[in-house]
Amino acid sequence: MINQAQRKLISKILVKPGMDANISKREPGNQLGIIDEQTATELLAEFIDELRALQERLWAQQSKGLLIVLQGIDTSGKDGVIRNIIGALHPAGVRIASFKAPAGAETQHDYLWRIHQQMPNRGEVVVFNRSHYESLLIERVRGFAPKEVWARRYKHIVNFERLLTDEGTHIVKFMLHISKAEQALRLQARLDDPTKLWKFNPGDLDDRKMWSKYIRAYEDAVTKTSTSNAPWHVVPSDHKWVRNVAVATVLLDTLNRIDPQYPPADFDVNAIHIV
Amino acid sequence: MINQAQRKLISKILVKPGMDANISKREPGNQLGIIDEQTATELLAEFIDELRALQERLWAQQSKGLLIVLQGIDTSGKDGVIRNIIGALHPAGVRIASFKAPAGAETQHDYLWRIHQQMPNRGEVVVFNRSHYESLLIERVRGFAPKEVWARRYKHIVNFERLLTDEGTHIVKFMLHISKAEQALRLQARLDDPTKLWKFNPGDLDDRKMWSKYIRAYEDAVTKTSTSNAPWHVVPSDHKWVRNVAVATVLLDTLNRIDPQYPPADFDVNAIHIV
Repeated sequence: MINQAQRKLISKILVKPGMDANISKREPGNQLGIIDEQTATELLAEFIDELRALQERLWAQQSKGLLIVLQGIDTSGKDGVIRNIIGALHPAGVRIASFKAPAGAETQHDYLWRIHQQMPNRGEVVVFNRSHYESLLIERVRGFAPKEVWARRYKHIVNFERLLTDEGTHIVKFMLHISKAEQALRLQARLDDPTKLWKFNPGDLDDRKMWSKYIRAYEDAVTKTSTSNAPWHVVPSDHKWVRNVAVATVLLDTLNRIDPQYPPADFDVNAIHIV
Repeated sequence: MINQAQRKLISKILVKPGMDANISKREPGNQLGIIDEQTATELLAEFIDELRALQERLWAQQSKGLLIVLQGIDTSGKDGVIRNIIGALHPAGVRIASFKAPAGAETQHDYLWRIHQQMPNRGEVVVFNRSHYESLLIERVRGFAPKEVWARRYKHIVNFERLLTDEGTHIVKFMLHISKAEQALRLQARLDDPTKLWKFNPGDLDDRKMWSKYIRAYEDAVTKTSTSNAPWHVVPSDHKWVRNVAVATVLLDTLNRIDPQYPPADFDVNAIHIV
């Protein structure tokens, strides 16, 4: 079980169902009560050991799946979460699904078709690096979909996620929230470092110009789709160490609630003799 | 580049194209010149740092893919390799594909159909936990396929792997080789530990009874399909630490040969101003 401090941290970042997300009032530099990076690093190491143990049981039980949705503007740290937290889990039970602009057969179907295909198997943890939520974000902001099309999608998605959890997939969602100033620093760092340059896409600057439109689109998406069965967390992510501890804490809570157990033997153990 | 000692280790476990694999003469307890577990642990930590750096470049370049085939009888350590070595790589660029007995739509197609679907994307590392080689192993040993069917598959597979490498997928194959006595210990350990019991499948004992038939089937499969573009390595795996160092060394060599590079910018870096 998670402790009181962890519960308090989660309450600061959880978007309670039915409440406004209030993203523009949330401080991306918030440290969530964590004193400094050193403390965060120690906490994270502890949490990761616990996450590993829980994930092994999830995988062994082959009953429930866990879907982790990661959203956030470029450089917000989706990749860092995957590397630092998800990377610590047993890779046999983990899959990363990255969603780019729909192409090929994907464009011949509704926007949830390709999403549905990537759902976790029983026992599996799947991380969405971007997700179906892009259909409420980039498609709205860039005008790829007209309002009457994107406006009805909030309901589709809530219903879709209800189906998934009813049938055994747990869902937890994170919006990694950075400030526009922090993004500038991170983009510049990519430009300045030849080993990071490949992550820089000039098109990201177009999104940057529409910053406030994105915040509004996130506000609607997060507010309208944070449900008890698929809650959103807005994670202050200007400090990578705060981001990591926050995400790990929520995952720890989620896995503790799933409470996976090693399955009992379906054979008589005492009757087995290895010769 | 790998050094002389690493080159020598690889030459001990590589099955040279055109030569007999000689599996039954290979000692599963061979330490491959590694003095002790402590030394192995230090070596592995070094190799893993190098592997990480190379994999990041592979992923950044999005040009070549890498397929790692893991074969071996139950408890031989396929899962341990995935956890200890593959688990250290960036999960966004890694995928694990596990192949169980064909089922559903898989049975409606040739035996390479489902295999082909799991091939690495450009830049990706994919690990096969069991593979198309089961069609030359369990299907032969258990008689699921008659001889005229499995006998022609060696050639299919060599040709299939040629296609893959011609088109940009690097392939490296490992048979994890343990002794029958070591398997008995590992199976018993699963029976004795409630957190390992879920890995025990009574059906594994049926395979154990056909040990020498499996060795013969492996001998043919490895001998006939170890090619310059998709070489087999028979890894002595009674010592997990020897196994880990051996696999990591081969992967290091493989990635060094691929020699992935960070891609140059396809835009004018100096023209970019972040505002």
